[in-house]
Amino acid sequence: MKTTVYVFLLISLSINLHAEDGHNLWLRNKNTGHVNVVCTRSSATLTIAIQELQQGWQGKEGAKIVLTLKNDKAIRNDGFKLSPDRIQANTDLGILYGVYELLRRQQTGEPVEEMICNPSYEVRVLNHWDNPDSSIERGYAGRSIFWRKGDNSLIVTDKDMALWKEYARADASIGINGAVLNNVNASPLMLSKEYLDRVKAIAEVLRPYGIKTYLSVKFSSPSLIGKLKTSDPLSPEVIKWWKNKVQEIYSMIPDFGGFLVKASSEGQPGPQDFGRTHADGANMLADALNPFGGIVMWRAFVYSPTDLDRAKQAYTEFMPLDGQFRDNVIIQVKNGPVDFQPREPFSPLFGAMKKTSVMPEFQVTQEYLGQAIHLVFLATMWEECLQSETYQEGAGSTVARCTDGSIYPQKHTAIAGVSNIGLDTNWCGHPFAQANWYAFGRLAWNNSLTSEKIADEWIKLTFAPVLPGQATSTLFSTEWTEHFLIPVRQMMLQSRETAVNYMMPLGFHHIFSANGHYGPGPWWAPKGMRSDWTPPYYHKADTNGVGFDRTHAGSDAVSQYHDPLGSQFNDLKTCPDKYLLWFHHLPWDYKMKNGRTLWDEICYHYETGLQQVREFQIIWDKVESYIDTERFTMVQSKLRNQCRNAQIWNDACLLYFQQYSRRPIPYDIKRPMNDLNVLMENDMKRR
Amino acid sequence: MKTTVYVFLLISLSINLHAEDGHNLWLRNKNTGHVNVVCTRSSATLTIAIQELQQGWQGKEGAKIVLTLKNDKAIRNDGFKLSPDRIQANTDLGILYGVYELLRRQQTGEPVEEMICNPSYEVRVLNHWDNPDSSIERGYAGRSIFWRKGDNSLIVTDKDMALWKEYARADASIGINGAVLNNVNASPLMLSKEYLDRVKAIAEVLRPYGIKTYLSVKFSSPSLIGKLKTSDPLSPEVIKWWKNKVQEIYSMIPDFGGFLVKASSEGQPGPQDFGRTHADGANMLADALNPFGGIVMWRAFVYSPTDLDRAKQAYTEFMPLDGQFRDNVIIQVKNGPVDFQPREPFSPLFGAMKKTSVMPEFQVTQEYLGQAIHLVFLATMWEECLQSETYQEGAGSTVARCTDGSIYPQKHTAIAGVSNIGLDTNWCGHPFAQANWYAFGRLAWNNSLTSEKIADEWIKLTFAPVLPGQATSTLFSTEWTEHFLIPVRQMMLQSRETAVNYMMPLGFHHIFSANGHYGPGPWWAPKGMRSDWTPPYYHKADTNGVGFDRTHAGSDAVSQYHDPLGSQFNDLKTCPDKYLLWFHHLPWDYKMKNGRTLWDEICYHYETGLQQVREFQIIWDKVESYIDTERFTMVQSKLRNQCRNAQIWNDACLLYFQQYSRRPIPYDIKRPMNDLNVLMENDMKRR
Repeated sequence: MKTTVYVFLLISLSINLHAEDGHNLWLRNKNTGHVNVVCTRSSATLTIAIQELQQGWQGKEGAKIVLTLKNDKAIRNDGFKLSPDRIQANTDLGILYGVYELLRRQQTGEPVEEMICNPSYEVRVLNHWDNPDSSIERGYAGRSIFWRKGDNSLIVTDKDMALWKEYARADASIGINGAVLNNVNASPLMLSKEYLDRVKAIAEVLRPYGIKTYLSVKFSSPSLIGKLKTSDPLSPEVIKWWKNKVQEIYSMIPDFGGFLVKASSEGQPGPQDFGRTHADGANMLADALNPFGGIVMWRAFVYSPTDLDRAKQAYTEFMPLDGQFRDNVIIQVKNGPVDFQPREPFSPLFGAMKKTSVMPEFQVTQEYLGQAIHLVFLATMWEECLQSETYQEGAGSTVARCTDGSIYPQKHTAIAGVSNIGLDTNWCGHPFAQANWYAFGRLAWNNSLTSEKIADEWIKLTFAPVLPGQATSTLFSTEWTEHFLIPVRQMMLQSRETAVNYMMPLGFHHIFSANGHYGPGPWWAPKGMRSDWTPPYYHKADTNGVGFDRTHAGSDAVSQYHDPLGSQFNDLKTCPDKYLLWFHHLPWDYKMKNGRTLWDEICYHYETGLQQVREFQIIWDKVESYIDTERFTMVQSKLRNQCRNAQIWNDACLLYFQQYSRRPIPYDIKRPMNDLNVLMENDMKRR
Repeated sequence: MKTTVYVFLLISLSINLHAEDGHNLWLRNKNTGHVNVVCTRSSATLTIAIQELQQGWQGKEGAKIVLTLKNDKAIRNDGFKLSPDRIQANTDLGILYGVYELLRRQQTGEPVEEMICNPSYEVRVLNHWDNPDSSIERGYAGRSIFWRKGDNSLIVTDKDMALWKEYARADASIGINGAVLNNVNASPLMLSKEYLDRVKAIAEVLRPYGIKTYLSVKFSSPSLIGKLKTSDPLSPEVIKWWKNKVQEIYSMIPDFGGFLVKASSEGQPGPQDFGRTHADGANMLADALNPFGGIVMWRAFVYSPTDLDRAKQAYTEFMPLDGQFRDNVIIQVKNGPVDFQPREPFSPLFGAMKKTSVMPEFQVTQEYLGQAIHLVFLATMWEECLQSETYQEGAGSTVARCTDGSIYPQKHTAIAGVSNIGLDTNWCGHPFAQANWYAFGRLAWNNSLTSEKIADEWIKLTFAPVLPGQATSTLFSTEWTEHFLIPVRQMMLQSRETAVNYMMPLGFHHIFSANGHYGPGPWWAPKGMRSDWTPPYYHKADTNGVGFDRTHAGSDAVSQYHDPLGSQFNDLKTCPDKYLLWFHHLPWDYKMKNGRTLWDEICYHYETGLQQVREFQIIWDKVESYIDTERFTMVQSKLRNQCRNAQIWNDACLLYFQQYSRRPIPYDIKRPMNDLNVLMENDMKRR
């Protein structure tokens, strides 16, 4: 019987099984009828808006849509007012966003009602960690779409422009309005005339879609390319050099967005090289940009090898500077206090800097979350961060509200996502990694969206059946919803917790293999290596116990959190299990709230994570008949790879920590398939 | 609580946890008291018997044991009569065997009652596939103990002799009385004076333990080393050459056992090169050996690339010769008709050759059963073969009874095991592979022993607690029995069926990776390769179905089996599932007796095999506190490796055959962790 059903499904849905290479992202659907668009103004952006409506219309055949530009105080920035037959906005870009909203609602089957949609953040920017040689730091989907290596690498081709246009369209369709075109570990080359020429060309392609260009700058550029003797931010000649450089940029790119700066961090030059503060450095650049409306996004990702607790350091260094920054400086803060780990508590800087603009930095590229191999939907992680309660201004002071202007009167609000795209046909390597690009844009636009809503939209747009002439939303049969949408959505929503389970449950962090941040490496601590780059610094396992003591009795990082949160984290009775080993060093036989020992609980988490991946494989295999072979096979293969890696995580961590716990893995758990010494040797060989 | 118990066990048994390197095999135990041995005769063998009694005595302190040599017709060959205070035999060797039986009973806690023990086979011989360069064909435990490579390789050292003595003792302790010292793919060198000198030295060490030496000979030796123009067995000069060579051997080794011959098989020279039959070849050698009491073991392992069914060929070629062989020729027949597969039906030659001596050849070394990595106890496989009903002389004509002289009046009876030993400290590579050496010896002595009995003995002798001064059998506490003996025995008894499940269930055979016979290779069929060396020849999978049709409608191999067996195999209703695809080509949706489709049943078998290995891991981890760390860790690591390999078998076979079945793997089964194309590519790379 089962066989018969299977064959039947294959036949009944064969119409949907043509190959899809993923290049169209969530923009696969075509119009199913004609629409009359009325628009009395014209601009490049409005032309796009009209084209999109005509190419993607799935509403009533022959309907009329009026695009109205009119100042309305209820509409902020690039927001818009949507009605069944009208889109109103203050700006051309607002109209375009309204068009994408309307088309998405048509495709996903959401009603189009009268509503005003305003963006949560003014600046919604992707950080591309792309290098001039076309490599991408933490890029897992091919080389840079912006930069090429080799001869003639700066010549702009038609192919370049076509790809940049597709990129801009994808960004705009989800509300992203900025792109930092190069790596935060910035090459000074980027400010040379030759490179700026290419930036100008990129900016021209991106502009109609409302995407502003930004650049990461190297703080020592005045010395490196300006041939000055210093890059001291208080030096008049340095100040002048930057003013001139900014002027040069704006003469080429009048709507240039500004600079992103990683300074005095991980070996990058910065104001501290000259005895100056982060504020001195940031303000100097801000002053140069201010006349043109440009901003400085100054990263708070700083830590030194001598500090006893890396997690405390950004707070320690930046809090004394609160109030000293220009109002066109925004401090860009990673979601957690360490570094994009599978799970961290939010950075205590959120909400704490009350007189300084602060923006969240999320990592869309999965540096620490399985790269382009693991299926990990990150919206749940970002939602967890954005909805975290800081208590900084009483209850309701979530990270979202502390950064989007709801609580503090920031001149600028912004949010950044470290991009996961590259030259791969499907942009992101893993078909499901596209969902993270999508989710970042959607959350940047609306930071109160739920992960479930985002996943739902993305699945419908990305995997919906396609039948010529038939509106997408009419194809969401009960069967499709039950057998495809719901299980795949559930898998996505579960996926980040699953990764946490098989990588770093219960507050473990940074126990990666040092080279690559992909596999496990809790053992990694070569002689002479700075300790805060080695996993034992973070897990502190010995025969007495495991975990980083950040309580009052330890590093006291808990005190960086506003009460009652600091006290909650400090107290074992109230500290959430998910942050347990982040804040506490505990004996292996510590009794968990569920009655298990800590050691057993660790084992069950790893096992659960592994088994969840195995469940994902079943979920995916079961949907085979609902999608095209190309994407089905690619995801199936990646899930197998993820499963192998999850097994290695499980084996490496259980066997490594077992050396200290000296306890058996509970016998109702499957045993490791690998030997610890072999895993360690292979890990060393890869270096 | 669990933890507490665990720690307690570690302490209570720590006395037993000293490292054991496995070199002592099943001969670990020392005496716990004094015994008075009375023996009126003396010989090298009797000296050993007396020493063994004194060194291993665990009976009543100060007891008296009388060793009596006396002719008794109830005692056959090297049999013996055992009583609590007396061992009686016809030969010195019989006395030695009686001593080992008595000591084993003391150690395992079996009662010593008055009983006569006669061996099932007269010749109980190990075949060592050792080459003069010290490599071992299908050897997985280091290089040869008999042959060394390099300069001075033929010089006999004290170390050589010490090792050969240990080897001889181990053999004798389980009843083995012969050793073929070199590979059946024989080097002609072996018959040169230099090599015969070394054979003589080996024979002298083995002789007191009752181990006769045999040699594999290359049929073309007269041409190759005798410089004759031919090796035609009917040529007078060839006949003379062999007579002289045999005479030379017996002048050096008066109790030399005889020759093992692989002729006209897999490219080896043989009588067919000269238009002669196997009988012509074997008889010529037999005539040369006969004056000295030597025998010829002539292998029936023959097949040609042109035959449509390799499984039929030995029968087809040898049956017409039945009755033409000298009575000192024994046809050596592998247990199954193809080649030591994880499971085959018995060779139809057993019982069918009624006028010719036939001996079983078992493979102790695990060429096709996971080599020295997988834990596979082979006694169950051999028991399955020996107890197979041939019906050749009515009910009760088992393979055992058809070969041990019970049914046919053979002049000589014999059984061969292809050895698994090498220079590894623990002899066999895998600690549990020692059990296969042990089991072969025990079954050769008594072919009606159960696998359970053999496993029970071996575990007790190999893993029993050791406390100085305390008889081993007194240490078999209820706890030890319940928590160690029973689960480990169960694992051993299950292990071969487990290997069949994850390698070749339901009658699949020879779907190995061609190079190495370790991993899966159902795809392997390079252009131009003779088809009977490629897996597709054996599985014959296509979109219509799978399996080798050996019914009347197919190759008719079923007709080589005596009715009612042939008819049972021919008829789907009566053919056992375990031989289903051996005898039948069936559609993927063929309905099994349990109601499942064939495809689903295949999937469940692979999955079951894999999960059984994972269960073995748990069983083994649970016994950690009962044995020494060295062997515990080694087996634990090998089980992990076995598990990884079982996963690869599962993935490779399910994904390969799924290309033809075009059916989903049942969704209650875990999915593959590997991609088929990657497995195939890796397999090709290894070649």
